Order: sequence, then C-alpha cells, then structure tokens
Amino acid sequence: MTIAEFDRDIEVWRAAPDAPGASDISGAYDAELPAGWVVGGGVNGGFLLAVVGSAVRAQLPDKPDPVTMSAAYCSAARPGPAQVRIRVRRDGGSLAVVTAELWQPGERGDELRLTTLSTYGDLARLHATANPFERVGAVEPALPARAACLPATAAPDAVRRAAPMMARFEMLFPPDQAGFAVGRPTHRGELSAWFRHHDRDPDPIALLQVLDALPPVTFDLGMPGWAPTLELTCHLRHRPAPGWLKVRHETRNVSGGMFEEDCEIWDSAGRLVAQSRQLARLPRAE
Amino acid sequence: MTIAEFDRDIEVWRAAPDAPGASDISGAYDAELPAGWVVGGGVNGGFLLAVVGSAVRAQLPDKPDPVTMSAAYCSAARPGPAQVRIRVRRDGGSLAVVTAELWQPGERGDELRLTTLSTYGDLARLHATANPFERVGAVEPALPARAACLPATAAPDAVRRAAPMMARFEMLFPPDQAGFAVGRPTHRGELSAWFRHHDRDPDPIALLQVLDALPPVTFDLGMPGWAPTLELTCHLRHRPAPGWLKVRHETRNVSGGMFEEDCEIWDSAGRLVAQSRQLARLPRAE
Repeated sequence: MTIAEFDRDIEVWRAAPDAPGASDISGAYDAELPAGWVVGGGVNGGFLLAVVGSAVRAQLPDKPDPVTMSAAYCSAARPGPAQVRIRVRRDGGSLAVVTAELWQPGERGDELRLTTLSTYGDLARLHATANPFERVGAVEPALPARAACLPATAAPDAVRRAAPMMARFEMLFPPDQAGFAVGRPTHRGELSAWFRHHDRDPDPIALLQVLDALPPVTFDLGMPGWAPTLELTCHLRHRPAPGWLKVRHETRNVSGGMFEEDCEIWDSAGRLVAQSRQLARLPRAE
Repeated sequence: MTIAEFDRDIEVWRAAPDAPGASDISGAYDAELPAGWVVGGGVNGGFLLAVVGSAVRAQLPDKPDPVTMSAAYCSAARPGPAQVRIRVRRDGGSLAVVTAELWQPGERGDELRLTTLSTYGDLARLHATANPFERVGAVEPALPARAACLPATAAPDAVRRAAPMMARFEMLFPPDQAGFAVGRPTHRGELSAWFRHHDRDPDPIALLQVLDALPPVTFDLGMPGWAPTLELTCHLRHRPAPGWLKVRHETRNVSGGMFEEDCEIWDSAGRLVAQSRQLARLPRAE
C-alpha cells in the first residue's frame, strides 16, 4: 500500500513541547512543511490547517474529525520544520474543544505562524445519534462537465512558478468563470471549480486544504493582488463521498478595505460537506 | 454623566492572572456577570463575547475594536464573578491577534466557560487608509415600521421569566416573522428584528452581544428547543451609526444534527456593520 502524497505531506511526529512557560500544553507534534505547498510568499494557509488537523487527530484519536476550525494567521510560513502545540480545553461527551498553534524556528527563537480554535468529534458517530431533520437551502453549483473546463495547469508559466501548490491537485475552472486568469474577470465576485487530489479521496482533514485552494474571489472583481486572510473559519459537516469535489467561493460584502469570502464544498453525492468564511484585506489600491 | 446599563454590565477590572502554569498570559481582568443576562440555563453567549471584548479593549487601548472574534463554548456561565485571561499572540502594525478565555470559580477549581480567538484593531483608522473599493451584494432587510412590529416584551410570562435578558434591550419582530412565538413558525428558517439597547448607541463591542440576541433560527423551523452553539465567529466591519439596528438570522444548511446560522446587522445608515456565522446542534428529536 502506498501512502498518498497529501498524507505524507501532512504527517506529524509526537514531540516534547518546546514551549517555555506553557506547562498547560497537552501535546506537541513536529511536522516538515514541504516546498510543494508554497503559493506566493508562503506555505498555503489551508494546507497549514490540514497539518494542524493531522496533529489534533493524533492527539485525540477517538475524535478524528474537525467539526469547526477557526484560524488567525500571524506570519508567513516557510517550507521546513514546524511544530504544532495543542491545548485541549474541553474533552467530554462527543466533542472536544482544542486550541492549537503552529510554530517555526526563526532567527530570534520560535515564530508563531497561526493560531487556531477547533471543535473535534467523530462525524459518523455524531450523525448516527443526531436529530434526522434535514433542510439544505444552499444550492449545489451547476458546473459544466469536467471535459469542458479549463485546468489550472493551463495557467501561464509565471503563475505556476509562483504557485507550486497548483501541481498538488487537479483544479478545473468553468470557461465562463476563468476570465480572471486572462484579465477578463466577470466582476460578479464568484469563483467555482472542480477539485481533487491526485491520488487520494477527500476526508474532513483534506477539506481544510480545499477550502483555501482557489484564488481569492477578488481576482474575479478585477483585483489580482495579494489578499491576506485575517481570519478563516471552517465547518465540516459530513465525511465526503469519494471522487471529485465542487468548490464555490463568493463575496457579499466588500467594504472598508476588507471582504468576507464564503466557500462551499459539495461532494460527488451532491452533499454540502463543508463551508467556510474568511475575512481578508483587499489588495492595495493602485 | 451616567454610565449606560450595558457598559456597567461589561465592566472589567485589571487583575493578577490566577492561572497556574500559564506564565505566557498577557493580562487578566475580573468581571461580575449580572443575573440580568441569563437566558435559559446560563448567561447569554453574545453577552459573554462583549465581556471578553471589554477586557481585550482594556489590554490593547490603541486597538479597541474587535474586527473578528471566534468563540467555542465549553460550559454554561452563571451570574457571579468571572475572569478573562488574555494571550496577545501578535501585535504589530494595525492589527493584533489575541486569544482570551473566560473562567469562573467552580466547586473543584476554576472552570472554563469559553475560549476565543480574535483580531483587534481600530476600525476608523483601518478604513482611513484602506482600498476604497466597495461592493455589497448583501441586501438590507426590508422590515415593517417599528410601530407595526411586535415587541419581545409581549412574550408570555413564562418566556420572559426564562429569559431575563429580554428586559435588557428592545427587540421588535415583524408580524409575519413572529409566528414562532405562538406555535406558527414560517418554516423558512429566517428571523429578523429591530434592536436597540435602552440607553446606549451601538458600538462594535455591543454588536458582539446583538449577534446572539435573537432566538435560534430553528424556532422558525418548528423546533423551539435548546440549540447549543458549538462555535460562533463574528466579523465587525464598521463602527455602527447611532440608533436602531436591523438584525437578520437565517440558515441554509440543516443537516447531520447541526445547523449553520448566519446573522447580519445593518445600522441606521443602511450599512452592513457586522456578520456572524455559528454552528449549533439541533434540538433533540421528539
């Protein structure tokens, strides 16, 4: 059995917590952030969430699924060694509340890359005993057939060099939403794509990465600059079915130099399996 | 000059951190949670966010506004003494990243009520230098005139006894969305109201309370039971104009025993000043 590239990349190893003055740390895990997940100036934020998720899963094996995760980004992560430090704040019943931080060694001691606040549980077990009432008003995106879509690998060389991450998965854009890549954004504030990892079916931890894989929705508003995320919160609602995912981003509130970006992930069974919302800063005005 | 009731209720006093083994705490603040903010079995979750916000504002006076706040609720808070313990995780440039926890003394030592992850800044200063591009696709709720709406104080005695909080503010429901209160929910999964505190205009910290003031949107789906919040994230986008607020809640994804609830707050100038999303558990099936 071969291990999928994504699982190798998010692998963690139990470590001694290397955190002075914080004796309330429940567990620490070392990771090695691969250069392959760089986009622009740092390692992709969604990938970092998956590394954190991988560490929390190791800490709480009976609650393997992130149900919610919120993250604030403190500095850009670079390829190389990192440590996830976990504080279990509550672990009773079917859910645990966990804070976890990702640190990297810097020139003047350890540097904090991101801090997270999560709820962990076992989605299958949670559902088995849940109130069965269902009512999904959100609408599954109607994407063209994959053969009619434009792969991210067709992006110009310069784009692919700046975003090695794009070689880690398949991402196919509907032709009528791919204009942002050639200077013809729709100005609707919306981006959708088909998505899958090359050699692995999705699970809740992989979805943490998928929620932050597309370009910022501001690309579709004619602002192709860097849009730094201030805060990102994910809800993971179902273990996804195998196969391709549909991912949809939109913004409804660009104001005061910031924008909210909502993301939905729909699985191959037509279920809304994950939602996220982030607040990000607009690129600087030109 | 009299101090408004809400400001007295969220007042905090600088304290020595009473947290064994956590020498990385930046500051601690004592508070006294008033009985007047109880709803059901505990102190209202949004009010607790405002108490945390009040403490962080005292810690970081040059970054007085919560820009984002995420919270996970660990146990029910009771009226009485509480302590907010703050860790400033990053404070550079125009924004700070802060984690803060609210603790209360319990029978076997301190008990954690909620843990939060926030971004703090000065909204007026952030806007002054921001990219001026604006595009708000969200639509301001069209509520009937306040004189045509039904005040929460008209609720049955039993409801008001279970929710003393409802006497802390004015909340007026459109007649066509008030059916939940008399067993005739609309089943649209939507609740809106006019809102104001009695003696105080809104500010970003008060908005933290307003985002969690209405009944759960599941009341409008015919499920009037308790819907415990797992996680709540707020984005505060503008300092609100003086006067009445419009508050709108809706859910688009009730599934797997959980539902997401989105809230928007619009100020008297017609601006979308705050958004929140929470994940909550459905009431148990009957």
